[in-house]
Amino acid sequence: MGVMNRQVLLRNRPSGAPQVGDFEVVDAPMPVPGEGEVLCRTIYLSLDPYMRGRMNEGRSYATPAQVGKPMVGGTVSEVVESRHPGFAKGDVVLGYDGWQAYAVSGGAGARKLDPRQAPISTALGVLGMPGLTAYVGLLDIGKPKEGETVVVSAAAGAVGSAVGQIAKIKGCRVVGVAGSAEKCDYVVKELGFDACVNHRAEDLVAALEKACPRGIDIYFENVGGGVLAAVLRLINPNARIPLCGLISEYNAATPPPGPNLRPLLFNRALIKGFIVSDHFDRLGDFLPDCTGWVRDGRLKYREDIVEGLENAPGAFLGLFQGKNFGKLLVKAGADPTRPIAPR
Amino acid sequence: MGVMNRQVLLRNRPSGAPQVGDFEVVDAPMPVPGEGEVLCRTIYLSLDPYMRGRMNEGRSYATPAQVGKPMVGGTVSEVVESRHPGFAKGDVVLGYDGWQAYAVSGGAGARKLDPRQAPISTALGVLGMPGLTAYVGLLDIGKPKEGETVVVSAAAGAVGSAVGQIAKIKGCRVVGVAGSAEKCDYVVKELGFDACVNHRAEDLVAALEKACPRGIDIYFENVGGGVLAAVLRLINPNARIPLCGLISEYNAATPPPGPNLRPLLFNRALIKGFIVSDHFDRLGDFLPDCTGWVRDGRLKYREDIVEGLENAPGAFLGLFQGKNFGKLLVKAGADPTRPIAPR
Repeated sequence: MGVMNRQVLLRNRPSGAPQVGDFEVVDAPMPVPGEGEVLCRTIYLSLDPYMRGRMNEGRSYATPAQVGKPMVGGTVSEVVESRHPGFAKGDVVLGYDGWQAYAVSGGAGARKLDPRQAPISTALGVLGMPGLTAYVGLLDIGKPKEGETVVVSAAAGAVGSAVGQIAKIKGCRVVGVAGSAEKCDYVVKELGFDACVNHRAEDLVAALEKACPRGIDIYFENVGGGVLAAVLRLINPNARIPLCGLISEYNAATPPPGPNLRPLLFNRALIKGFIVSDHFDRLGDFLPDCTGWVRDGRLKYREDIVEGLENAPGAFLGLFQGKNFGKLLVKAGADPTRPIAPR
Repeated sequence: MGVMNRQVLLRNRPSGAPQVGDFEVVDAPMPVPGEGEVLCRTIYLSLDPYMRGRMNEGRSYATPAQVGKPMVGGTVSEVVESRHPGFAKGDVVLGYDGWQAYAVSGGAGARKLDPRQAPISTALGVLGMPGLTAYVGLLDIGKPKEGETVVVSAAAGAVGSAVGQIAKIKGCRVVGVAGSAEKCDYVVKELGFDACVNHRAEDLVAALEKACPRGIDIYFENVGGGVLAAVLRLINPNARIPLCGLISEYNAATPPPGPNLRPLLFNRALIKGFIVSDHFDRLGDFLPDCTGWVRDGRLKYREDIVEGLENAPGAFLGLFQGKNFGKLLVKAGADPTRPIAPR
């Protein structure tokens, strides 16, 4: 036989923290496109915290991944065979092909990428779902005003790093919370945040109080747990808390208690959960704004690229320990548009 | 000496649950109005859960009550002497004179009441601050749509009973949560709620699930603790939670943990704290709407009237055990407008 289709299947639904053994790497037969379909070769697969939720059975905002099928996920791919009038061989497309080397699709959810506009991998990061998440969560729910103080957790991550930089562009004081001295350094020195607190090393309330002398107007929540509790003690009247993620809790078999909510009451504050897929109507603002800011160097990004689909499970588990540094991507195959490795 | 001014002073700032001994009943000399001032005799004093917060030192949305001074509170009074061009002897006014039989004021915060429009005591309840709280919290933050399910805690209380009835007027399914079978009966049979759950007697999640077969779209939060945690398990996508009060927590020396917030994220739900004093701009809508509904019998109310200022401390403490049944008022002196006792 010739080329096979490497896939990473969901083998078990984990209870609590997933294990590498909850996944299975297999080489399946190559799929064949029918009339009106395209065959795509995966170049980059995005690994994101939300995927933990897809591993569970039951009620959520999206249908779960299927046991015995490839894990779901966003991909940037090259069209290697097209029987669809809208796509040609060689096109690079953003899709949702999952954890596999090849996929056949009808092209409905695929968007063509122009490699001259930005590196194609950014369509999974700063110019993709994580970037749009940052953009709508901060601007539409957080509604930052010039001079306000914005705190963002997981500040070195794909979403957090964009949140902080967009808040700086909007004239805010920006304080990150991250999980290592190296990440804090990066956030302040490379991304231009005003300060960053290492939640593993410092007394969070004291450190945040020092970094936020005028209190906290917006807290962009990615992690949950102790950071939210500490922030609530320092919120200002009319504070806004876009609730984007609770990564510290995703592996808990039993949901842990949350923070006391009394400060919300006294401060007339708002917590609002949101899911980026409700906000695709903002793509028309997001893409030109953020593409421009990336080009101008005002919106920087960092990628953490793992080679080989077979390494996706281990890299995914590392997300929940903060082992990645930058947007976590799996390079599943050659990138014809980027001959030089990113830093 | 002639008439004295009975006052209830704040003696100590309590830590945890207040005691009767944290208050002191004294008979002080009568105050004398100066030029431009009025002397008012208190008829009704309102006792409200928010007063617990005023007993604390420190940062809140309002300045604390002063140790050694009369406790603060809303009052309905009769003008007994006026040296102010805007008020005449015999006028009945809504003011904020505190826990005392007489007070002198410049009239700035006082609003004249027309006893022909509605019983004057309602200016402290269904047509006053608690009513406005229900109105703006439900309509402006909750934004009920016809057919949605609204749950309200402390459903037999001054705020909760108005919330539920206004939600019924807006075409919602309304489920109360209250602390006794008698209160649940009242809420369903007298006020017309669709159902009411006794949080002391029933498995809350199971009972709420049964009462809310289409999930929960709005939860009007007055109490905190286990009710909020149970509700969060049943919220629908895009649920709204006006956070009005957390009475179950006000006496805690250390704030207890709150519910896990993951359902907010998955359901894109909103929690928003609010303070009624930010919303006085809505009086112009609230008063005609609610006065009309009271007259039409669509918005009923119940008062729990304690006789004598000296009994205010004990009655106030009972609020936190749910001992009152209806809007808690202290009758501090004769009501010239209501010769017949309310039921």
